[in-house]
Amino acid sequence: MTKFEIPSEQWAQVVEKSGGPVSYKKIPVQKPGPDEVLINVKYSGVCHTDLHAMMGDWPLPTKLPLVGGHEGAGVVVAKGELVGDLELGDYAGIKWLNGSCLACGFCMQADESLCPRALLSGYTVDGSFQQYAIAKATHVARIPKDCNLEAIAPVLCAGITVYKGLKESGARAGQHVAVVGAGGGLGSMAIQYARAMGLRVVAIDGGREKGESCRSLGAEAYVDYTSSADIVADVKKATSDGLGPHAVLLLAVSEKPFQQATEYVRSRGAVVCISMPAKAFFRAPVFDTVVRMLTIKGSYVGNRQDTQEAIDFFHRGLIKVPYKTVGLSKLQDVYKLMQENKVVGRYVVDTSR
Amino acid sequence: MTKFEIPSEQWAQVVEKSGGPVSYKKIPVQKPGPDEVLINVKYSGVCHTDLHAMMGDWPLPTKLPLVGGHEGAGVVVAKGELVGDLELGDYAGIKWLNGSCLACGFCMQADESLCPRALLSGYTVDGSFQQYAIAKATHVARIPKDCNLEAIAPVLCAGITVYKGLKESGARAGQHVAVVGAGGGLGSMAIQYARAMGLRVVAIDGGREKGESCRSLGAEAYVDYTSSADIVADVKKATSDGLGPHAVLLLAVSEKPFQQATEYVRSRGAVVCISMPAKAFFRAPVFDTVVRMLTIKGSYVGNRQDTQEAIDFFHRGLIKVPYKTVGLSKLQDVYKLMQENKVVGRYVVDTSR
Amino acid sequence: MTKFEIPSEQWAQVVEKSGGPVSYKKIPVQKPGPDEVLINVKYSGVCHTDLHAMMGDWPLPTKLPLVGGHEGAGVVVAKGELVGDLELGDYAGIKWLNGSCLACGFCMQADESLCPRALLSGYTVDGSFQQYAIAKATHVARIPKDCNLEAIAPVLCAGITVYKGLKESGARAGQHVAVVGAGGGLGSMAIQYARAMGLRVVAIDGGREKGESCRSLGAEAYVDYTSSADIVADVKKATSDGLGPHAVLLLAVSEKPFQQATEYVRSRGAVVCISMPAKAFFRAPVFDTVVRMLTIKGSYVGNRQDTQEAIDFFHRGLIKVPYKTVGLSKLQDVYKLMQENKVVGRYVVDTSR
Amino acid sequence: MTKFEIPSEQWAQVVEKSGGPVSYKKIPVQKPGPDEVLINVKYSGVCHTDLHAMMGDWPLPTKLPLVGGHEGAGVVVAKGELVGDLELGDYAGIKWLNGSCLACGFCMQADESLCPRALLSGYTVDGSFQQYAIAKATHVARIPKDCNLEAIAPVLCAGITVYKGLKESGARAGQHVAVVGAGGGLGSMAIQYARAMGLRVVAIDGGREKGESCRSLGAEAYVDYTSSADIVADVKKATSDGLGPHAVLLLAVSEKPFQQATEYVRSRGAVVCISMPAKAFFRAPVFDTVVRMLTIKGSYVGNRQDTQEAIDFFHRGLIKVPYKTVGLSKLQDVYKLMQENKVVGRYVVDTSR
Repeated sequence: MTKFEIPSEQWAQVVEKSGGPVSYKKIPVQKPGPDEVLINVKYSGVCHTDLHAMMGDWPLPTKLPLVGGHEGAGVVVAKGELVGDLELGDYAGIKWLNGSCLACGFCMQADESLCPRALLSGYTVDGSFQQYAIAKATHVARIPKDCNLEAIAPVLCAGITVYKGLKESGARAGQHVAVVGAGGGLGSMAIQYARAMGLRVVAIDGGREKGESCRSLGAEAYVDYTSSADIVADVKKATSDGLGPHAVLLLAVSEKPFQQATEYVRSRGAVVCISMPAKAFFRAPVFDTVVRMLTIKGSYVGNRQDTQEAIDFFHRGLIKVPYKTVGLSKLQDVYKLMQENKVVGRYVVDTSR
Repeated sequence: MTKFEIPSEQWAQVVEKSGGPVSYKKIPVQKPGPDEVLINVKYSGVCHTDLHAMMGDWPLPTKLPLVGGHEGAGVVVAKGELVGDLELGDYAGIKWLNGSCLACGFCMQADESLCPRALLSGYTVDGSFQQYAIAKATHVARIPKDCNLEAIAPVLCAGITVYKGLKESGARAGQHVAVVGAGGGLGSMAIQYARAMGLRVVAIDGGREKGESCRSLGAEAYVDYTSSADIVADVKKATSDGLGPHAVLLLAVSEKPFQQATEYVRSRGAVVCISMPAKAFFRAPVFDTVVRMLTIKGSYVGNRQDTQEAIDFFHRGLIKVPYKTVGLSKLQDVYKLMQENKVVGRYVVDTSR
Repeated sequence: MTKFEIPSEQWAQVVEKSGGPVSYKKIPVQKPGPDEVLINVKYSGVCHTDLHAMMGDWPLPTKLPLVGGHEGAGVVVAKGELVGDLELGDYAGIKWLNGSCLACGFCMQADESLCPRALLSGYTVDGSFQQYAIAKATHVARIPKDCNLEAIAPVLCAGITVYKGLKESGARAGQHVAVVGAGGGLGSMAIQYARAMGLRVVAIDGGREKGESCRSLGAEAYVDYTSSADIVADVKKATSDGLGPHAVLLLAVSEKPFQQATEYVRSRGAVVCISMPAKAFFRAPVFDTVVRMLTIKGSYVGNRQDTQEAIDFFHRGLIKVPYKTVGLSKLQDVYKLMQENKVVGRYVVDTSR
Repeated sequence: MTKFEIPSEQWAQVVEKSGGPVSYKKIPVQKPGPDEVLINVKYSGVCHTDLHAMMGDWPLPTKLPLVGGHEGAGVVVAKGELVGDLELGDYAGIKWLNGSCLACGFCMQADESLCPRALLSGYTVDGSFQQYAIAKATHVARIPKDCNLEAIAPVLCAGITVYKGLKESGARAGQHVAVVGAGGGLGSMAIQYARAMGLRVVAIDGGREKGESCRSLGAEAYVDYTSSADIVADVKKATSDGLGPHAVLLLAVSEKPFQQATEYVRSRGAVVCISMPAKAFFRAPVFDTVVRMLTIKGSYVGNRQDTQEAIDFFHRGLIKVPYKTVGLSKLQDVYKLMQENKVVGRYVVDTSR
């Protein structure tokens, strides 16, 4: 087993007060508890949730001061006495669920994300925007040694989330799934996971460029909401028998597509909500919901098994994630781009600079 | 095999024009096609849907002139050449689904109620408010010979519908299900079916009398919305661990309970819409739906297998249906009571008078 | 709608007595009943079951005289008065299930192949080794107009059967499935269906040539039972974590692989029996079955929905079936090759010669 | 929070060498690790597995010296620093699974009993035949404070096991399940759990007395293998449509009923193996397994969620367990009775004497 030199201080991006900004500074390195590991984070994806955590504009309060980040890929450099299968030197990932009680009804049924005592990386506990982060050993993602830590970082939240949504949709190989917001970061991964699962994708987004990108990733059809005269009709037409997709994945950042989805989804189909536009409501006519036997459901991140499966598809080379890398020290610049809605694809920060 | 004398004329209640009223008159008896049976209807339940059919106030147009009714229990008196398992003299039931194509994707997957070519009794084809009614042999309910035809009539729509809803909820034996509108006709059957399935019922309705009725049918708890200071809190408190029911069955006649259900249902739980208040919408916050992984779904009548299962529970003596019987000639009086909202329990008409 | 000239006589291969041979002769063309269609069979696959039917060596007696065949692809040329969605000129397929009652508990739950009154093509009713064959309209396979009738014939039994088996296995996209007998006709289709469903295939068969064929069709690994020193170990090693495949599909023609499968299948995995070696028994130690929570199950042909799905994968170009075509008049020669165990891939007969 | 006096020494029954006997002696009380609890065991059920552990006649070797027992009900008297939801004074149960890694693929999918690093109470770690036993906090059964610890002890293995088997069978409320060995300790619990789940029980065992006992616990039918002329026919006849039970639970102590079960189970039904007669094999004809689409599966104890559900049914008063209580000091006498096959029902030992 390798032995690692662990410094007493490290670089981190710290939110001192709600509203930000983050400050890049040296803070102490923590020691793992008996059931924890210390991960030397090499790369971390940056997610909109991290911006919300800094701004403090969600109902749930964050820890303060806070180190954000929940898509951290790195190396196990220390571990507690109870940690079994992980060895020093192993690759591991920090994800949104930093830990959970593993004993409540939700945890016992593998719905750890619903655990009332869940620890959230970069939100209720310090996350991956630092060089050395702590996480519960049972919860860190196991990453194969031959994975590229930079490329896998965005899989640790975005990838898991869309993969889980596809599983929750109940769609089977050979069936059609509509991905709303298919041209974005999550959408592009959703298309690829869907393809790897044998599903046929109807991509929905705006603009010709996004259409080309969606098709190149494997979407069979693209409906452009900026030019379609009748989105509902066009989505249905894009399925082989014209009855509409068997499932819809909602990754949209505005509320309207949520209402539209029940109109084009096939009878007995499922509409899966994943994205959470601020203050959005889902609204559907009861009559149609009943006589067409529709299902509307929410899917929230993924459990640990979903995590390993999502990583496995990536590991097999089936998922390519578009990302740009900057130094951790430039995190505030990324937040600024996000606030200006100028981010295309995913940003990854390199903790070494 | 018994041979039956079939008259050429019979008594029926006929809707001559949308808006009603029904007129009680003699009409010809039809002959069954090769795949049909002729049923001598003895009793028929009266459902709110029948009133809608007469009034013509639903978006879907009805046949005209129309014989309504879709809860008809009677005896097979004639059958087409292709009819296999049914014999003359067998008991059989006319239900909402009079027939379907049995060849489309929905029929092939046992979702006959979603068949685009479904025939609806008392709506798109003549129903059970006559002495002799036609139905597709594959679709009539098979009723055991020792069943009381008067008592089983309301099971043929109301019973099947709530039983199906309970199956669709995914709730398992030992789990809690809230029944909204538990004191009504459907509700009282829902409580009994739930109990027979090993479920624990939280009944929700208004008034002390309904509460007593619900408890006597097997509900473990009753929440009275006319007196509860906090319905959400009270429903949760009524479950063994305080986390809320695993499923909710919505049988309410107004829209409000539809919005409330997502507040008290347990995380990962299912809210099943069954009743269809006029122009009602289901509205739920996206954030909660996602982070609590809620499912909202519609359940519409039941398929043929659900029908036989629902009848089987009745046959075993586990379901008691409260009903009042009047002559078929008095149907308009029943509609009047419905319009005045004065019906408690279910009305059954006797076609012999 | 096209109108077809239907001759009164046609060429057929008729089994006059159990043990055969078949005699190629002219017989009358039948007329479809109200719920039936008459199909002008263009091509028919030849299956081992057809040989059994001629030999009469299965416990279930056949109709006599008998026209065999249950993989018939052709054109609808006449139909009964009750037939809805099929039009004259449509492409349709005769499959093993020629008809079923559609009203029993099995049919109502979409398990038509378990119907006690099922009609079996080329076994209890005349099948597809004639130019004009009758089938129940609800049961004939719907074939898209742009499909090649020659190439699709073997899909109508072999394709459906392996696809159904994969569905029954419960294996999910990304998981491993072992296909035993992967180099044969069924096996080669199983590999392709598995791939289309996102599954990872461990092919098991004998000889280097079969191995190359399996790999070229998409198998990730090949275990050669003629050269492996430890089949169980080798199959496990072929899965990414070494725990063995999540499911096993048994297409073998001898009994031994049935016993071996429970040794290498992963705990909680499923062994699906499809092929039926004469007088074979499945034998597994109770202790292992229990403590490893194994499932052993049988999968028998497929229902009508499975049929349409299996055809859809073929239609999308994802399934290539290796076959050789001869004239219907040469059927006895094919049986001879089968009896001599000299058939590689699938034979198709052309009814025009 | 209550504080408990914990002695340094305690009474225990210790297996010093394989083959036994147990010796009743004082041994030190252990201290719980960070993720463990110390339970003051009040009562423990005695299971055949405990006898196997003493005799060392199973392939898997035991710890030595060994304190047996895995149905221990008691009080939490000490806990490690990481233990969250359990408080000192809480009731808790030691079960077969003393602990598992909670991080492998099986644990992550709530199949902890399949964990390759599972700790087995009274087998690979010391169990409940002592006054103070250690277990992983996440694994101990949570027992409500108003439960009788003496009566609940046998639920902790036998109850959970049969309840899990019923869940694994897939049988739904209203369906028939045959329980083979219904008159024994496990069988009597299986009948009651089945009833609580809405299932209809066909009890199978030998002798009139057992028949009366089975019927009094809620079995609808009883087939006596000592007097039945045709068990297969009689079991089928005992189901409402004569097609046989939808599921079979095998709790038999000999091999023969394992082979018979596939003959009377309904097509598409499931045979669930639970008991493990020494060296027994399951043997079924491939032909029938395939064409009747049978499922044969093993069910092994239950996971933590199954545990809580099984306890919940007990807590609600739906499960009565027949047991006799003796002092822990008399354990060897119980083993003797077991070896002489003289035990009817379940023995419980009281650790205070």
